[in-house]
Amino acid sequence: MDEKLKRQLLFLTEIDRMKNVMRQTLLMDKSRQETDAEHSWHFAVMALTLFEYSGLHGVNIDRVVRMALLHDLIEIYAGDTFAYDVKANEDKQERELMAADRLFSLLPLEQGEEYRALWLEFDEMLTPDAMYAAAIDRLQPFLSNHMTDGHTWVKHGVSLEQVLKRMAPVKTALPALWEYVEQVIGEGIEKGYILPGERA
Amino acid sequence: MDEKLKRQLLFLTEIDRMKNVMRQTLLMDKSRQETDAEHSWHFAVMALTLFEYSGLHGVNIDRVVRMALLHDLIEIYAGDTFAYDVKANEDKQERELMAADRLFSLLPLEQGEEYRALWLEFDEMLTPDAMYAAAIDRLQPFLSNHMTDGHTWVKHGVSLEQVLKRMAPVKTALPALWEYVEQVIGEGIEKGYILPGERA
Repeated sequence: MDEKLKRQLLFLTEIDRMKNVMRQTLLMDKSRQETDAEHSWHFAVMALTLFEYSGLHGVNIDRVVRMALLHDLIEIYAGDTFAYDVKANEDKQERELMAADRLFSLLPLEQGEEYRALWLEFDEMLTPDAMYAAAIDRLQPFLSNHMTDGHTWVKHGVSLEQVLKRMAPVKTALPALWEYVEQVIGEGIEKGYILPGERA
Repeated sequence: MDEKLKRQLLFLTEIDRMKNVMRQTLLMDKSRQETDAEHSWHFAVMALTLFEYSGLHGVNIDRVVRMALLHDLIEIYAGDTFAYDVKANEDKQERELMAADRLFSLLPLEQGEEYRALWLEFDEMLTPDAMYAAAIDRLQPFLSNHMTDGHTWVKHGVSLEQVLKRMAPVKTALPALWEYVEQVIGEGIEKGYILPGERA
């Protein structure tokens, strides 16, 4: 078989492991945690479905969908780092850069660099595509938390300040959804799912 | 909240159920069956990664990726119909059309019609985009079968004739991969995973 195709099939086999990377987020029926593969799929469909509300100029939705599909691949080696885990986030960047080198080098050079660049662009959150993607990436588990009685907020004692900081990209990238975000947060505080002050 | 946005959020909540629709295909580590959400994600990444081998003119990869993301949504209501299950395939079309009406009508009219049309185009397999998508949709579980000692072939006593018929779209849409497909099938027969003749 062609060496190039062989590498691509090896990569496509390796990424099956995304179905074993578990996230903190529960399925909405609370039956179990969701996998990275499931999150990436849901993220992509959400990005597509809510695109009309993009508050940023020049967002290319097809690039965003590709970011959604590829943005968590490095977690196959680096693991899922929970957004509100301060300690784990300290060495997150280093772990993820090493994972990216390892994973994307499975692919033929040009394609590996293309995928790696898309991931890095997402991670740096500086371009309109990456900012829109970041907003959706945060909205997806937010929606799940809303449907599961604030599961990860409660489990990890998350504060209002932390949620607001985490959800801030929605304000810029999807301003039409901010009212909804505020409403869900308000309900979360009222029901005791989100701590009203600093993290205890 | 805006009525339109409300419907879109309802749809995005409902499709969480894709993480509960189980397929026959095993994860490559054999730990469990994969979900429709995971399959859709893997299908989308495979379509993107192997696009340079498309043997069809005029395939729009971004439309194919959208088909991948949406093609199995109707299974939330219609269930996953195993490709080699003759009886279940008899009323598949009717079940899936009803499911499509129910699911896509959750969305605002125009968007619901857009998604429904993409699903139908995929299902009819007549356009270059749908033909390329069909080839990848079949290659994804084929790769898993190869990595799991022919799990679904063995479990359901699938014959060479059935596998060849199922994989035929690859010959047209991804001719460069046909040699690989034949090689895997050859190995599957040799090891007894695929029955050499008609289904018993």
